[in-house]
Amino acid sequence: MFRRSLVLARRASLSRCASLRPVASVISTRFYAASKTVPFTAETYKDKVQRDPRYKNLEEKDVSFFRSVLENDNYVVTGTEDLDFFNEDWMRKYKGQSKLVLKPKTTEQVSEILKYCNEQKLAVVPQGGNTGLVGGSNPVFDEIIISLANMSKVRSFDDVSGILKCDAGLILENADNFLAENGYIFPLDLGAKGSCHVGGVVATNAGGLRLLRYGSLHGSVLGLEAVLPDGTIYNSMDALRKDNTGYDLKQLFIGSEGTLGIITGVSILCPSRPTATNVAFLAVSSYEAVQKVFVGARKELSEILSAFEFMDSKSQLLTARYLKADHPIESGEYPFYVLIETSGSNRDHDMEKLETFLGNAMEDGLVDDGIIAQDETQLRNLWTWRESIPEASAHAGGVYKYDVSIPLANLYALVDDASERLAAADLVDFNDESKPVVEAIGYGHLGDGNLHLNVCVREYRKDIEQQLEPFVYEWIKENKGSISAEHGLGFQKKNYIGYSKNDIEIKMIKDVKNHYDPNGILNPYKYI
Amino acid sequence: MFRRSLVLARRASLSRCASLRPVASVISTRFYAASKTVPFTAETYKDKVQRDPRYKNLEEKDVSFFRSVLENDNYVVTGTEDLDFFNEDWMRKYKGQSKLVLKPKTTEQVSEILKYCNEQKLAVVPQGGNTGLVGGSNPVFDEIIISLANMSKVRSFDDVSGILKCDAGLILENADNFLAENGYIFPLDLGAKGSCHVGGVVATNAGGLRLLRYGSLHGSVLGLEAVLPDGTIYNSMDALRKDNTGYDLKQLFIGSEGTLGIITGVSILCPSRPTATNVAFLAVSSYEAVQKVFVGARKELSEILSAFEFMDSKSQLLTARYLKADHPIESGEYPFYVLIETSGSNRDHDMEKLETFLGNAMEDGLVDDGIIAQDETQLRNLWTWRESIPEASAHAGGVYKYDVSIPLANLYALVDDASERLAAADLVDFNDESKPVVEAIGYGHLGDGNLHLNVCVREYRKDIEQQLEPFVYEWIKENKGSISAEHGLGFQKKNYIGYSKNDIEIKMIKDVKNHYDPNGILNPYKYI
Repeated sequence: MFRRSLVLARRASLSRCASLRPVASVISTRFYAASKTVPFTAETYKDKVQRDPRYKNLEEKDVSFFRSVLENDNYVVTGTEDLDFFNEDWMRKYKGQSKLVLKPKTTEQVSEILKYCNEQKLAVVPQGGNTGLVGGSNPVFDEIIISLANMSKVRSFDDVSGILKCDAGLILENADNFLAENGYIFPLDLGAKGSCHVGGVVATNAGGLRLLRYGSLHGSVLGLEAVLPDGTIYNSMDALRKDNTGYDLKQLFIGSEGTLGIITGVSILCPSRPTATNVAFLAVSSYEAVQKVFVGARKELSEILSAFEFMDSKSQLLTARYLKADHPIESGEYPFYVLIETSGSNRDHDMEKLETFLGNAMEDGLVDDGIIAQDETQLRNLWTWRESIPEASAHAGGVYKYDVSIPLANLYALVDDASERLAAADLVDFNDESKPVVEAIGYGHLGDGNLHLNVCVREYRKDIEQQLEPFVYEWIKENKGSISAEHGLGFQKKNYIGYSKNDIEIKMIKDVKNHYDPNGILNPYKYI
Repeated sequence: MFRRSLVLARRASLSRCASLRPVASVISTRFYAASKTVPFTAETYKDKVQRDPRYKNLEEKDVSFFRSVLENDNYVVTGTEDLDFFNEDWMRKYKGQSKLVLKPKTTEQVSEILKYCNEQKLAVVPQGGNTGLVGGSNPVFDEIIISLANMSKVRSFDDVSGILKCDAGLILENADNFLAENGYIFPLDLGAKGSCHVGGVVATNAGGLRLLRYGSLHGSVLGLEAVLPDGTIYNSMDALRKDNTGYDLKQLFIGSEGTLGIITGVSILCPSRPTATNVAFLAVSSYEAVQKVFVGARKELSEILSAFEFMDSKSQLLTARYLKADHPIESGEYPFYVLIETSGSNRDHDMEKLETFLGNAMEDGLVDDGIIAQDETQLRNLWTWRESIPEASAHAGGVYKYDVSIPLANLYALVDDASERLAAADLVDFNDESKPVVEAIGYGHLGDGNLHLNVCVREYRKDIEQQLEPFVYEWIKENKGSISAEHGLGFQKKNYIGYSKNDIEIKMIKDVKNHYDPNGILNPYKYI
């Protein structure tokens, strides 16, 4: 009976679901509102950060040197309007004042540029697709931007081992499309795939949607090519799947956010592309039940489970308003929703496992309602309800994003506590436009212990920020979580690392930075 | 028809297969031949290595200090016979001359010991289960041995996230048995599991049998506790699955073979334990066909493929002689054999996938004969034919082991070339006991590009060694492989790192070593 009710729900809901407008690539599209100019980071945070006088100011002779290295005027950007694209982040929260963007074509050019900058004490910011969420790839003051956009080639692919070697500036979606043609898949996926670079993904140790299945980049990246501040080219691109000769130095660059060197090449192990993908969208009435559904999914779906995403009801209300569409689950409003994806090599087997699992979960009273996508369009539409949340969050004006890891048992309590705090300060109303905060919502990759707390606002205001910080970070520390699960430290979280790392770790991290970049020219004012 | 022939072969062979004597734990059993004493490493290699005079000789007052730290005389080993167990490696190839073994119970004791050794310039060797294959965990001269055997507790286990936290000295098999009770599995398995320690496995970045499925330890280890030479305790044990705050320092310790610090605690992410395991054993007539079977298995078995091991016919002849048993595939002798394991959550689904895959492979002429285990006993017996090879290799007297990674296309050519070279020097005969070499055999984890070239000898002799080294290393370098896929560098390969790493990498590795261990007290004469 329960199984049937699930199937009925599926049938009833999915005709609607299929009519949702498809949102192809949610985060990757920049939307510049002409009415709004982004304030300079140096102005907004003038009480927190000053330009470091040890860095030289850019001179005309420096620009001439770079022109001689790059041999092509198109690779040297100096016009103010053209520079805006590189100076600003996509959230329009940070803006640097760089006067120069360099777009090298080769690793040797990157080496020559860095060597010169190091000798001249010119500070630089490496930049990939500029899709970061913590201001890590934009200058704070006048740092020179080194964009990898012109280094975007696939170098080689071995279709027996699945090893892809590519330039750092290859766009993630292009890499994955190339792999799809060969029956393989990039072991990482995220909303910004249409813009972000493979090198940027590695430099920030991005997590994204496939981590639950394929693990972290620390496991799948086999080798790197990276240029150190003094121009030295570190190259471990020939590394095979197994290589136990010496310290695994490439690991230091994964997640270093451009503070140790500039990644110019990536070698990565890619899995076979699953031929069958199924998606179910479930309504769940408590956070405790969400956890139980997760434990069951890990056990019963085991090797085919490829995503376990959860969303609270507030995130879905906001998304419905943004998408101007009815929710795929029509039978009412539920406190939590879960999206489960399976990927495997046999559709019938996978569907049987999924239906058995969901039938059991409904029978056990863990799931109140649910639907299973019947075709690729429905599957994309269900993902849209998950992937549109970031854009829906920012739609009213802006969003304070906290991307955190918390032991699962307490994960959602942070959203409740933050909401209460904002309500107590009388800052929130979902409908009343006179209140600065629309809503604090929670969603994320539950399978990885990763919560996105988004505080959706009509405007960025100091009094909101004061309610949230350091409150959120203190809460995380108390609960032994991480203040940055996957977005990194960048500029936003530079001063908060102490909430996630102990003094010895911080000292060791600083030692590494000083060892590799004694002049501090790489991505200053950030990270540590 | 082909499917049927496979099934018939299965039926015919497995009654025998089930009668093989089970070999529970192949590498973990020490077999001390009373007739043979192991020569001192310092003697055997006296032209290559001298004791470094900067290290102090152990004095009675040092021993008194250590006794005061450990507070229990059982934790301080000084008797000559007792010391042998720690001074010798299990292959009986290396023997140190340490006069002291310390067996601390707590991380703080390790810290006090190291701090003192660092101040006094007393060299030390960290030791786990002493199952290494490159002499990495035995002293070369009189280094003090610090054994982790007394630190063997499970610290905690979270059965929602699958995160296990344990002491470094926990024996791998005990860890896996504990996890099995909770429905989870340790993401690594190897022949020495009955003796090797979790900490040793991490310190050497062991690969083993499950790497194809669960990836490397660089991906699954979440946090470490390690004591640096100056006594500092590095602790990242609270790290969750995702944490992007600062450089991932723990990665440096994974595979550092005790040269940067002593690992005392490990936090590791464990997958759900598969409930269904199947094993097929196949006869294949060429190395080209072996590769094609692998590509097919990756595509068709995809998410359930958990091992793809290959063996040449010579390895099987040797194993048959050692096990005194008939080979499970009775229809004749074939150039290559492949063991395929699947692990999943539904036995019927997995068996259907495996049978379809094997039927297709036979129809395509890639597989000549094959059997599928019908129960747990048969499954273990088939694994025995793979797991007994290391012991069978050493049975005639000794074995020169080369554990290498090579791009798949050329992987087996190394065995052919080494065999030819030994034959040309008239050193080999499978039966004639007057020749020093029995056979050069090849087998390994094909799924990871990992070949084990074993040169099985009746005695260790300089003229054999001269034929093999640097020949093997030069061959690997020419073919862009790694001279150590999973066994590490240790003492054996210290001087050969240049065949796998370039000068810049080696310089960077040395810099890291000097940075963390400026007095060089940790595991000297090895690694780099």
